[in-house]
Amino acid sequence: MDIREFVAGSIGHWRSQRSAHHLAFGHFEAVQSEIDITDLALDAPEVVALCQAYSIDPKEAIAPFRMSWVGQSDWEDSEEIKGNCVLVPIPDPERPNCGKLLRERGYAEEVAAIGEYHITEDNTFVLVTNYDRASAEEKIWFVNPNVRCRVSLIKTSAGTGVITASFSSEIRQSSQSA
Amino acid sequence: MDIREFVAGSIGHWRSQRSAHHLAFGHFEAVQSEIDITDLALDAPEVVALCQAYSIDPKEAIAPFRMSWVGQSDWEDSEEIKGNCVLVPIPDPERPNCGKLLRERGYAEEVAAIGEYHITEDNTFVLVTNYDRASAEEKIWFVNPNVRCRVSLIKTSAGTGVITASFSSEIRQSSQSA
Repeated sequence: MDIREFVAGSIGHWRSQRSAHHLAFGHFEAVQSEIDITDLALDAPEVVALCQAYSIDPKEAIAPFRMSWVGQSDWEDSEEIKGNCVLVPIPDPERPNCGKLLRERGYAEEVAAIGEYHITEDNTFVLVTNYDRASAEEKIWFVNPNVRCRVSLIKTSAGTGVITASFSSEIRQSSQSA
Repeated sequence: MDIREFVAGSIGHWRSQRSAHHLAFGHFEAVQSEIDITDLALDAPEVVALCQAYSIDPKEAIAPFRMSWVGQSDWEDSEEIKGNCVLVPIPDPERPNCGKLLRERGYAEEVAAIGEYHITEDNTFVLVTNYDRASAEEKIWFVNPNVRCRVSLIKTSAGTGVITASFSSEIRQSSQSA
């Protein structure tokens, strides 16, 4: 599986259950959300702008997409979690199935971020993103074409301590229910 | 990482947070438990007995161990989840980092089970176990020597539908607190 196939398989409307484990205190958080992943044209203004922000030639991009989500945490009953961001893969021409992922904003800190991805032999997409005060490691894989799993770890910036480990199971919704 | 290293890294006392996602209904279950993993001698009676139950020469076994757990689910406030089982890896002499895992009882159905394991290039231990009415796929990896992640999927026996997806984050406890 290459990045183009990975993104193509991800396009759609998903229902997500996410559990976050806040490790120091043994706390659980449960989040239910709806996620939309839509493809973007290589020449879409938001794609070109994101590439330019990192001084990367938009011609190097492959399969850019937008992810948007609306969710509800059991920790914050009254507040809806809502957001969207543009993601642009920039494959490494020298190393197969490796590259950079540009994104408008990250998970751990709400600023633009650039991560390093690779796809393993067993088709797991692995993304490592370093922020100022933390780093995030994400693994995403398909169980079947309609079920994705995602594990996200937020670590201290030294990379040794794990602060939060979270797991999402994502089920594709038919377009009728979208 | 080979199976011997994987088991050696797992020996110890762990505090586990497990979240189960019951996918059809979008239900969450949270389980807190303590897990003990102890090594067993190759000639321990329970190891020899388990090998014999599968007509396998105990000399083929490597790094057998016992796992025991005591936990509490938020679904069953009054009932403690408690159990233990013996696990015996039988490496495949022909295929590196692949083999069978014998266990006294399985997760999905409480009977003895034989699973197929392999360890991926990025040191993820993958175990697939087929039961009568279901199959289980488990992935376990170390984030650092003191943090393990485990994703378990219970699928219909046809292997296509996912019934339950669960995620555990396991933190090694120092022997003082054990």
